[in-house]
Amino acid sequence: MTHSTALLTDHYELTMLQASLADGTAQRRSVFELFARRLPEGRRYGVVAGVNRLLDALERFRFDERAIGFLADRGVVDQATRDWLAEYRFTGDIAGYADGEIFFPGSPVLVVEASFAEAVLLETVFLSILNHDSAVASAASRMTWWAGGRPCIEMGSRRTHEESAVAAALSAYIAGFATTSNLEAAHRYGIPSAGTAAHSFTLLHDTERDAFTSQIDALGKGTTLLVDTYDVAEAVRTAIGITGPELGAVRLDSGDLPSLAGQVREQLDALGATKTRIIVTSDLDEYQIAALAPAPVDGYGVGTSLVTGSGHPTCGFVYKLVARETADGALVPVAKKSPDKISIGGRKYALRRRSASGVAEVELIGVGEPPVDDGDDRELLKPLVEAGKIVGRTTPEESQIHHLKVRDELPRYASQLSRGEPAIPTEYSGDHDARNPFLPRSHM
Amino acid sequence: MTHSTALLTDHYELTMLQASLADGTAQRRSVFELFARRLPEGRRYGVVAGVNRLLDALERFRFDERAIGFLADRGVVDQATRDWLAEYRFTGDIAGYADGEIFFPGSPVLVVEASFAEAVLLETVFLSILNHDSAVASAASRMTWWAGGRPCIEMGSRRTHEESAVAAALSAYIAGFATTSNLEAAHRYGIPSAGTAAHSFTLLHDTERDAFTSQIDALGKGTTLLVDTYDVAEAVRTAIGITGPELGAVRLDSGDLPSLAGQVREQLDALGATKTRIIVTSDLDEYQIAALAPAPVDGYGVGTSLVTGSGHPTCGFVYKLVARETADGALVPVAKKSPDKISIGGRKYALRRRSASGVAEVELIGVGEPPVDDGDDRELLKPLVEAGKIVGRTTPEESQIHHLKVRDELPRYASQLSRGEPAIPTEYSGDHDARNPFLPRSHM
Repeated sequence: MTHSTALLTDHYELTMLQASLADGTAQRRSVFELFARRLPEGRRYGVVAGVNRLLDALERFRFDERAIGFLADRGVVDQATRDWLAEYRFTGDIAGYADGEIFFPGSPVLVVEASFAEAVLLETVFLSILNHDSAVASAASRMTWWAGGRPCIEMGSRRTHEESAVAAALSAYIAGFATTSNLEAAHRYGIPSAGTAAHSFTLLHDTERDAFTSQIDALGKGTTLLVDTYDVAEAVRTAIGITGPELGAVRLDSGDLPSLAGQVREQLDALGATKTRIIVTSDLDEYQIAALAPAPVDGYGVGTSLVTGSGHPTCGFVYKLVARETADGALVPVAKKSPDKISIGGRKYALRRRSASGVAEVELIGVGEPPVDDGDDRELLKPLVEAGKIVGRTTPEESQIHHLKVRDELPRYASQLSRGEPAIPTEYSGDHDARNPFLPRSHM
Repeated sequence: MTHSTALLTDHYELTMLQASLADGTAQRRSVFELFARRLPEGRRYGVVAGVNRLLDALERFRFDERAIGFLADRGVVDQATRDWLAEYRFTGDIAGYADGEIFFPGSPVLVVEASFAEAVLLETVFLSILNHDSAVASAASRMTWWAGGRPCIEMGSRRTHEESAVAAALSAYIAGFATTSNLEAAHRYGIPSAGTAAHSFTLLHDTERDAFTSQIDALGKGTTLLVDTYDVAEAVRTAIGITGPELGAVRLDSGDLPSLAGQVREQLDALGATKTRIIVTSDLDEYQIAALAPAPVDGYGVGTSLVTGSGHPTCGFVYKLVARETADGALVPVAKKSPDKISIGGRKYALRRRSASGVAEVELIGVGEPPVDDGDDRELLKPLVEAGKIVGRTTPEESQIHHLKVRDELPRYASQLSRGEPAIPTEYSGDHDARNPFLPRSHM
């Protein structure tokens, strides 16, 4: 994946560039912000993921010969614009929420300061990455929260675009998943991978016993045997007959899982396999995981609902110009005025206001100037890029640790799966003339 | 995108390979099929897309040094398996539905015949591609059907993973979209791209007039001006004041579009700009497009709902072993027996049964042998790969033409947006012992 990301861009960004280069406004210093106007209906919080991928994409955002040749062949932009693009390097500043951070309506997840020309080009690729990855992480976090100490295994690759699958595995890991089935993600990001066998492996063999024996010969008694191809009780008997009590785990991929898990647990215990774990898969989501909490389940494999954001496959992040230089060099706030898509002009800063005991209380957003830290607050915007230099990279492990720590700050009801308002309200300080569109309804 | 696709694979495919290589079953001739057990709730038909991308991915499915090194470092599989993988080339046969073809529950969208080892490895990457691309095409087709002769413009890149965006643009094009905003898709697949300006371009300038003048200077009077940054009526007046009646189009991205479009049409006509088109964008989906049919709208820009499959971001395609060689060389049908996920064993063939006047009547699936063509039927499975050689590539243009042609075969009620059963029933011929799980409820 060393190819250029420059064409992962909407056509209109380049035509805007051409017009602004011609009239001289391209060089006006500008602030673009990436934020969500609201959370998906009923969600209590969102989780940022994709920031490190975004930095990688920025590094590869170069209009190479292939890209310039295409723009020329199609006549997308004129020669002067192509010459400018061939030299494109981002030289501005970017601050943002870290991978794993929690966000709320209005949170300035990314603040990009540069010339209009440099910043406008990044709109599509930045939005693509954060809208996708954060949608997956936001769903994943609810799953790992309800799974408690039981590991969650990401196995949704087959249900989403092949490259989304790799990003989804990383996003799930950031939000607390233990492993992924996706080998490319394991390789590219160094996260743990796992997997044993599908139904086809049992069906390939003349008997289930042949299949189990083969798998154990290859992978050892610590493996996980899939026991629901024919008859679960018979398969469990066969499995323990071969391995004795040392079998690592059995996997259930169909049926009424809460009751089936109970039956299998009893059977395993009766056979002396008290340490053999039970892994369940089969269209799980956060609601099913919560429903399985009382069942004797030792791990959850999650696929479709994870990679599709559990009903919300995109975050609704937008990338808006909120301030720009005037002809005389001053930076002024700007905002669209149409009634149904309100934005607040002016550069934003953000603190998570916390109580003395460390519980999150308010998403406090300063407009035009930083809000005042009352002593227990936490700064949310981290430097990611300074004068074009990437300074804010974190590892997946650091991001996961960060996520679990900041999720712990949320009031306990933030974990509720019932539909409701964001866990904490968004409030604004500083000068701004728009009415506040981000407060939860109960605060209006 | 010339890198290897080999690690876009679930961990368990490689562990199954290792076990089957060790016990000798890896070489058993096998038939895997890719199909959907059902359509998303209420949908009348699905649209296949991704077949050409799948053939590209197959061509690049090679375990290069990077991949083999990773498998060794992590100990995913043993040395013998890695040696086998280093030599991997698919040498089997693949038949499938063409890009743009319509599918129904049970349609054998892809039939893969090869050794178990060769075929099992392709499960994840094949499913990823077809599940994603077909979900987008299935939604897109409903949109273009309801848009009638008005062009649909794909502009959803920012709402989905940056590479999904490229595939979504292609899938939308196959299902009848006219253009995309995505430059990489335009470059990679040769489809038309379009775009003009965002709100940020107006906000960058000191006045809306400055912004419009700049855009017209750069792109000509035939451009599309975005007129809803401040006040729509004033913006339209300003725009036509600059260009006269030659302005190409105005774009509306907010507000109550049916009534707003009517007002803007009246205003444009009163100003003499009777040929200036009105393009609407703003969270459109097939329902909104249908609702806008009576409004004086000339084109639809569709984003979020398109790239997320309009509520159904994945197709639910599965990849199942349906037949395999026995120890004595015979090919026998196989199927999982669990009650809630029924599959029908045996290799499938498929015809679209049509009336004498060419209207589709039944998705006719032969189990173990081809169904008999009654004279007006259409063969659905095309050769895609023969003895490892790719033979079934089509261009995006061919796929779009094919889609519009075969969609035209459907009974008229297939376009209904209300929830209902598949437009035609799926029926089986030939030997099979499973009860038929794919019939619409009304046929049971």
